[in-house]
Amino acid sequence: MEPFKIHRQLQLDSHYLGKFPISHILLHKNAILPWFILVPEIAAGDLLDLQEDARHAVMQEAAAVAEFIKKVLGYPKINFAAIGNVVPQAHLHIVGRRPGDACWPAPVWGHLSVTREYSTAELRDMNAALARDCAIRPVSGVQF
Amino acid sequence: MEPFKIHRQLQLDSHYLGKFPISHILLHKNAILPWFILVPEIAAGDLLDLQEDARHAVMQEAAAVAEFIKKVLGYPKINFAAIGNVVPQAHLHIVGRRPGDACWPAPVWGHLSVTREYSTAELRDMNAALARDCAIRPVSGVQF
Repeated sequence: MEPFKIHRQLQLDSHYLGKFPISHILLHKNAILPWFILVPEIAAGDLLDLQEDARHAVMQEAAAVAEFIKKVLGYPKINFAAIGNVVPQAHLHIVGRRPGDACWPAPVWGHLSVTREYSTAELRDMNAALARDCAIRPVSGVQF
Repeated sequence: MEPFKIHRQLQLDSHYLGKFPISHILLHKNAILPWFILVPEIAAGDLLDLQEDARHAVMQEAAAVAEFIKKVLGYPKINFAAIGNVVPQAHLHIVGRRPGDACWPAPVWGHLSVTREYSTAELRDMNAALARDCAIRPVSGVQF
């Protein structure tokens, strides 16, 4: 079986963090807001097309990321979306938000114009925190 | 117990259609795209804050709406989001999309500038189709 390949556009936009049992977890390169992207290894293009058990399992992983954003990163609000008009591969956006942030109150999609890059140390710390709190694991075989 | 009250902004933006076991279902007044809004009767503000069972039940209702949009209304793609930066009451957007539609490929939130109103006949037909395919029921006590 060919190794799972994450869509080229998601690779360009994101840092690779690791994997839950079902989903790869990416971090959007724009560090202005904590913007995670889950890419579940599923055949469906739309989250809501999934069979019940698979959808619930993916949503559990999304909820773990949301809890991490709130409890560890300290953001009070989550924006959650499955859009996929540009990238057909199923992927879920989970974004930490707070009143007054760089895009508030607009959603980030098409509205976030301020950018900042993560430092190497920030990426390492984010990875370590996620590995500790969400039990994601590094993956060697993924094409990214 | 006071009757459940749907947030004033959602009332202004939407037509009331009926209720699933957990969620009220609204139809955004802009008829350019089939844009449904579920308002679950829950205490949490964020979908991903819900306990597992409650979240799964709400997602089942969202999946029923997505299936209706695809199979009955004939749209190939669903955009799904829980945002809530302006309206704190938990609500889920489920929007039917197709390549070349009035907002494609941008998400509707903050990008949909073309508008059209539903006719009375269209609203009646939508209500009847949803009652038939998704078993939503009319509600008399809701404040809308």
